[in-house]
Amino acid sequence: MSMKRTSVLLLILLSFYFSSGNCGKVLVWPTEYSHWMNMKTILDELVRRGHEVIVLTSSASILVDPSKPSTIKFEVYPTSLSKDVFEALFMKQIKRWIYDLPKYNFLSYFSHVQEISWNYYERIRHLCKDVVSNKKLMAKLQESKFDVVLADAISPCGRPTTLSETMGKAEMWLIRTYWDFDFPRPFLPNVDFIGGHHCKPAKPLPKEMEDFVQSSGGNGVVVFSLGSMVSDLTEERANVIASALAQIPQKVLWRFDGKKPHTLGPNTKLYKWLPQNDLLGHPKTKAFITHGGNNGIYEAIYHGVPMVGIPLFADQADNIVRMKTKGAAVAVDFSTMSSTDLLNALKTVINDPIYKENAMKLSRIHQDQPIKPLDRALFWIEFVMRHRGAKHLRAAAHDLTWFQYHSLDVIGFLLACVVTVIFIITKCCLFCFQKFTKPGKKGKRD
Amino acid sequence: MSMKRTSVLLLILLSFYFSSGNCGKVLVWPTEYSHWMNMKTILDELVRRGHEVIVLTSSASILVDPSKPSTIKFEVYPTSLSKDVFEALFMKQIKRWIYDLPKYNFLSYFSHVQEISWNYYERIRHLCKDVVSNKKLMAKLQESKFDVVLADAISPCGRPTTLSETMGKAEMWLIRTYWDFDFPRPFLPNVDFIGGHHCKPAKPLPKEMEDFVQSSGGNGVVVFSLGSMVSDLTEERANVIASALAQIPQKVLWRFDGKKPHTLGPNTKLYKWLPQNDLLGHPKTKAFITHGGNNGIYEAIYHGVPMVGIPLFADQADNIVRMKTKGAAVAVDFSTMSSTDLLNALKTVINDPIYKENAMKLSRIHQDQPIKPLDRALFWIEFVMRHRGAKHLRAAAHDLTWFQYHSLDVIGFLLACVVTVIFIITKCCLFCFQKFTKPGKKGKRD
Repeated sequence: MSMKRTSVLLLILLSFYFSSGNCGKVLVWPTEYSHWMNMKTILDELVRRGHEVIVLTSSASILVDPSKPSTIKFEVYPTSLSKDVFEALFMKQIKRWIYDLPKYNFLSYFSHVQEISWNYYERIRHLCKDVVSNKKLMAKLQESKFDVVLADAISPCGRPTTLSETMGKAEMWLIRTYWDFDFPRPFLPNVDFIGGHHCKPAKPLPKEMEDFVQSSGGNGVVVFSLGSMVSDLTEERANVIASALAQIPQKVLWRFDGKKPHTLGPNTKLYKWLPQNDLLGHPKTKAFITHGGNNGIYEAIYHGVPMVGIPLFADQADNIVRMKTKGAAVAVDFSTMSSTDLLNALKTVINDPIYKENAMKLSRIHQDQPIKPLDRALFWIEFVMRHRGAKHLRAAAHDLTWFQYHSLDVIGFLLACVVTVIFIITKCCLFCFQKFTKPGKKGKRD
Repeated sequence: MSMKRTSVLLLILLSFYFSSGNCGKVLVWPTEYSHWMNMKTILDELVRRGHEVIVLTSSASILVDPSKPSTIKFEVYPTSLSKDVFEALFMKQIKRWIYDLPKYNFLSYFSHVQEISWNYYERIRHLCKDVVSNKKLMAKLQESKFDVVLADAISPCGRPTTLSETMGKAEMWLIRTYWDFDFPRPFLPNVDFIGGHHCKPAKPLPKEMEDFVQSSGGNGVVVFSLGSMVSDLTEERANVIASALAQIPQKVLWRFDGKKPHTLGPNTKLYKWLPQNDLLGHPKTKAFITHGGNNGIYEAIYHGVPMVGIPLFADQADNIVRMKTKGAAVAVDFSTMSSTDLLNALKTVINDPIYKENAMKLSRIHQDQPIKPLDRALFWIEFVMRHRGAKHLRAAAHDLTWFQYHSLDVIGFLLACVVTVIFIITKCCLFCFQKFTKPGKKGKRD
């Protein structure tokens, strides 16, 4: 459940009036970490096009940071949680998923995933309550007359409602996948697939990093990151990984913020932060070791880089399976892998040309679209503002009750007709039978 | 059946190699009349972009006319039918649909529609046989190494096949509707909606016609056409129509090639041909009287002109119902309408501002798309050539058998498991029951 919903990025709800001119007022309900990094690309472009963007965020926000210089405006609401407590709560659940979950058996695994999800939604509910019960803030928002609400569907907040009701109310759904990553399936006209909208051509690397990359010669480099939420590992796992990396001829750039593993080879450099998109777009990059987050996978697809997937939590295993099925990745299991497993996986994606070919095929498909994903995202947000919605794209099925949707009312009526007709015919037959057979019986009795 | 399929315009099948450079070789399997007029817009644009377009057409072709000057190339195959006979066969069935069908009751109506459809498909089969059994032609086509086949799905021709198989083989489906005309429903990623791709801003009218339009003053004009297949009517129906037109203050431009009706008013001018798109885009045009063909309806949507629909055959009644539901048209019944009915319908769409408002709303939706329908059609045709298909957009469901598609194999296996378990449990229980109850019974008997 949680896995499917992580892929859904945004839902757009129509709000008030479209301001004068071509510029509108956008209210944003974001989600932390990679979801925010992904959404920010759209918000920056909205601001660049002259729209006013106001992000609703709590005083405990982590990456959604109002103190950083930005052209985006922030409306910070107070919450009883502190930033440190909020971050610690997140990290506790993530570590539980990564280190504890693999120990459970099939059945208790899912009950623990459910518990972690409930923990997450309890926190979202807490934040949501701090917004909707804040009368001063709500009055201010209502007075602001926004043209559109851009909300990350993984953190629902609002009026009391259901997921199904929210889905029906959204004017437009922007999904952060495309058919390079996803498998073809039916969808409705008010859904657009904007996966990889944050990707762009690589910029030059910082001087020191470029020198390190160039020092790899013909062997090239491997880029390694486990995403915005995991920069640290247990000593044991870190050493298993470092030892595998030490055995490849490539140079390795590893985003890592923990204790330096003692098995670290001279070919591997640790960084607290990596310009991931620029590195993946570098001609010397041979492979990408990734946890399988949507952002990183799309940067690899965009630049055509084969992957070694070490999925950690949420939808990551699901994402890596997709890349594996499309022949652009090899997966290893984080909790059970040995140095040899990781080494073999790396050797495979680097030395077997089919992985690079498949990654390049995905890249060509991704880059050959009628218009770019970011422009499509912007088009639909502006469309909803321009036309005060996108009603012509909305399936009428949303207005049906569940029994109408499954035609149970029609089937019920037809069944009632059939039953009535059978009843009437039976009654008639019985009546006739009794009428015409009684005299005969009487005769016999006489 | 026929109605649904008329809306489907094109199916693109991948063929051989993509030629050098960015230009490809396109083989076209067209359909006559309005379908050809609609498809020709795409072919002209393909030629303009440097592609080589070869249209496969019979020696009996009607509107697909190789003798007309064109940058499109034609490959004419001989057929035993003459052009006159071919046209007469078409016209006979059309007249039957328009004048005879309304006389039948509900049940025999559909059997007659089926007969007309079979008549049509018998003719298509005849033409198709003339192509596939022409060995010299087939060898020539195979040697030509086309990059793509562009086929009108209403006239299927090929390998022996089924509609379902053909649907699965098509790389891309281009449907000539959009959500201004159609109602939102789920669709697959290899389907694009290019309705109205033939529409463009109005060009100036011929001098004489412009003078007539201007002479209407503030009342404006009404444009009237029954499509590319019907330019003539019975005297009785023509007089009913002419008499209604004579009673409105607007000037009327009527595409009509029959005997001049004696009730024709001085405000109505008959033309053998009308520059329909240019007239509908003229600021003086107040309404469009149409049979409800897809091309005309889209020109009216594009320019935001309210309609009076007089549906005659095929999908026309269905199309008009859509425009009526969206509040941009009033429908009248061709076979039963009186002059007053038509007059009232005309007065309604011209004088009630809601019809113009709704037509303008459809126009705004139509014109506000991320890229124009014609550019999208061209993009996907070129995409199929560039990538030798569009496999990443193809649902895997096409490869399933009908029982796999409905999961009957899975359900069957699970049912078999349940039955086996029940059988074993029952047998065990019976065995135990017999084992433990026999001594007791024996004892009693003893």
